Amino acid sequence: MKFVVDQQVEDIELPENLKLNTFLQEFHSDCPHSECSFGFYGFAFGQSPFPVPNLIQKALVSNVDKGAYAPVPGIPELREAISKYNKHYFGLEIAPERIYVGPGTKELIFNLLEILHGTVILPTPAWLGYLPQIRFLKKNYHMLPARANGKISPQDLRKLSLRLHDRQKILILNNPHNPTGVVYDKLDLEEIADVCREQGITVISDEIYAQTTFDFSKFESMGKIYPEATFVTNGLSKSHAAGGYRLGYVIFPQHALDVRRQFKKILATEYTAVSTPIQHAAVAGFEISQEIEEYFQTTRNIHHLIGEYTFHALNELEGIKAVKPEGTFYLLADFNFFATELQKLKIDTSQKLSESLIVHPYHTAIVGGDSLVLERNDYRARIAYVDYDGKEVYKNYQNQKPKTHSEKLEFVEKNAPKIVSGINMIGRFFDDIKAQAKLQGISNTTINV
Amino acid sequence: MKFVVDQQVEDIELPENLKLNTFLQEFHSDCPHSECSFGFYGFAFGQSPFPVPNLIQKALVSNVDKGAYAPVPGIPELREAISKYNKHYFGLEIAPERIYVGPGTKELIFNLLEILHGTVILPTPAWLGYLPQIRFLKKNYHMLPARANGKISPQDLRKLSLRLHDRQKILILNNPHNPTGVVYDKLDLEEIADVCREQGITVISDEIYAQTTFDFSKFESMGKIYPEATFVTNGLSKSHAAGGYRLGYVIFPQHALDVRRQFKKILATEYTAVSTPIQHAAVAGFEISQEIEEYFQTTRNIHHLIGEYTFHALNELEGIKAVKPEGTFYLLADFNFFATELQKLKIDTSQKLSESLIVHPYHTAIVGGDSLVLERNDYRARIAYVDYDGKEVYKNYQNQKPKTHSEKLEFVEKNAPKIVSGINMIGRFFDDIKAQAKLQGISNTTINV
Repeated sequence: MKFVVDQQVEDIELPENLKLNTFLQEFHSDCPHSECSFGFYGFAFGQSPFPVPNLIQKALVSNVDKGAYAPVPGIPELREAISKYNKHYFGLEIAPERIYVGPGTKELIFNLLEILHGTVILPTPAWLGYLPQIRFLKKNYHMLPARANGKISPQDLRKLSLRLHDRQKILILNNPHNPTGVVYDKLDLEEIADVCREQGITVISDEIYAQTTFDFSKFESMGKIYPEATFVTNGLSKSHAAGGYRLGYVIFPQHALDVRRQFKKILATEYTAVSTPIQHAAVAGFEISQEIEEYFQTTRNIHHLIGEYTFHALNELEGIKAVKPEGTFYLLADFNFFATELQKLKIDTSQKLSESLIVHPYHTAIVGGDSLVLERNDYRARIAYVDYDGKEVYKNYQNQKPKTHSEKLEFVEKNAPKIVSGINMIGRFFDDIKAQAKLQGISNTTINV
Repeated sequence: MKFVVDQQVEDIELPENLKLNTFLQEFHSDCPHSECSFGFYGFAFGQSPFPVPNLIQKALVSNVDKGAYAPVPGIPELREAISKYNKHYFGLEIAPERIYVGPGTKELIFNLLEILHGTVILPTPAWLGYLPQIRFLKKNYHMLPARANGKISPQDLRKLSLRLHDRQKILILNNPHNPTGVVYDKLDLEEIADVCREQGITVISDEIYAQTTFDFSKFESMGKIYPEATFVTNGLSKSHAAGGYRLGYVIFPQHALDVRRQFKKILATEYTAVSTPIQHAAVAGFEISQEIEEYFQTTRNIHHLIGEYTFHALNELEGIKAVKPEGTFYLLADFNFFATELQKLKIDTSQKLSESLIVHPYHTAIVGGDSLVLERNDYRARIAYVDYDGKEVYKNYQNQKPKTHSEKLEFVEKNAPKIVSGINMIGRFFDDIKAQAKLQGISNTTINV
């Protein structure tokens, strides 16, 4: 029997990181080269490598008997804990009624894009999850390229907004930003908020990386600056290294009572509620405690340490430019210096660059530009620097915090050897590219890299 | 700030059972009558009252450290376990690759309706979850009313299908059936499958109540009878009393490779994967074991026992007709005998009937006809017979299984006193209706019941 599949589904693509991960799993077992048994240099998949905080695990143990359906917007104790968490960490005064819980921030953003009529303004580069959602929902959208510092400019936003004539415009702000790792500071946000107010732009502020901001005092929530029209999303995935738990939340703008009421209908229609045991476990993750504060600090410091290393090590390679990360566990590396050589070798898209880096002998996984909503021939890529044993590294960091530059270098070399080797491998790849392009310049034949 | 909400969302309604449950929670604390402290006779909310099986709880305890994202279609060991479970219990030979796991069967049905182009054929009465999904997705749909025995007739299906000119037609079959509790037997399904083959109809067979079939040997999966075009959905919610865990699965038709590939994109775009600890816990629920078999038998027998009681007790009340349930934990009660009296008292819709039954002194919650996709003035209602302490009743049943008619009666009276009293209260309500309608016939004034 032939099935007729909705055209919109045909048109979307599997998010690149998931596609890549599937590919890696399959490829790994297939590589015939015995020296490849170590696996891959995994710069592609954005997952916190740390163990789920003990107190969340314990709370889940205590709640395995919770088989009953939870209320649609979340159990009251969780919404209460999230409210206090937002006050403590982000200075946000949010009544629990303004907080809805969902099975991951991704689903909540999808639901927001379902419910909010209008045109989406998508800053680029962008997290690889937004565009498939926007396309699947057949929404109008416009890209807003970031400036060289990795941030969108308020002037660009105004200019674009003036061209759009939809009744409602929705800006997806991601701060700290995936894939660049940049952080919008208070002034940046105020300037963006001014334009949003003037232009009547609604904001979805995806703040899932808030706790990873290296200098945490620098993090500011858009929910504080533009409370009347910002939907803030956050969750357990990055701050609590519990992406697999699947729990996120959304904070509704002040006075958005009708949207809340309508939103509840979507949740009830699509998935009823989030897993009840998981919700009870999450309470422990959002409650204020010394233990969780220490967890945030430690994981944040390790991300910072390895991010700095990755940034400097990449920049030291000839021709490679990286944007300095201030949060998340990503940075954006720019390989456009090699554009001529790459094109000469028929590696004429960022997708092909990723594919060339993955095969033997390089075995290095990155997320190429077109998955980040960049032009297909823009050779920038996201580098996730989390390919290490999080449990071990956490312990080692707790035992002896590196202070000096050389201690930090030693810490990274000892604790994240695959990141060190992986960056070297990227260097080797581009050395080979240069050499082979030169060779081809002479012989004029195609050589596979 | 005013937000523009998608029109389609405005148009859907919160599923009636969830609305009612919210109402009950609020109302309960508000009722000024001290004798109401016992709560409500809860015939509305369809949730298995039993504890989650121990071996699932234990498996969850062992897997609280699983913080990593799971593969989009589910962890391999779960898909393997579900495959074996389907072979053992339903005689279905399904390769694990044909099984995808989702955060509840509801979400999977929603995703199927998203991906499958075409017109939906919805047998009525129907589970209260389908219609909001269909409406939200702006799908064409046609209702197919069941015959007096609670089942759709193959002839009616053919007649309707011949009128539809969409490229693809999707029949939502729910077996065992919510809200009627009827079970389609092998012959019924074969006749329906013949029409589906002839008319090229795709089937979504929601078999979430399969394990509750009172005479389990009578249950037959549509996936066996019409394997080439049936999507079977099932999950933990009813069989394992773990609705709150949020885990369901879908079995794809044979050879539906392209749909599977497309479906994966939807899951990846909307929610990535199901909670990893929950997936590991579910493995224990689908593995074949003496413990789980005993759990299925015991819970099934208790549903049977209380269903029989409820059926007979309602039928003994003057004017009330109930369809005999053969599975699930619902039955459909018909109050249309009182239509004239109800209308006279301005209770002119089934919604108003539910509302009149909920207030003091009746305190009885049922799900009225229009939530079951019946006409607004059709006074049929779903009666869920699960308002008892499942843990206690499970133990009591294990200790002494009632055999004779009088033992069974005694068991119900002792173990499910609220069901006994609730049915009496329904009787009292209609006695009052008759009396007041009569009174009004004399005085011609409106009296509130």
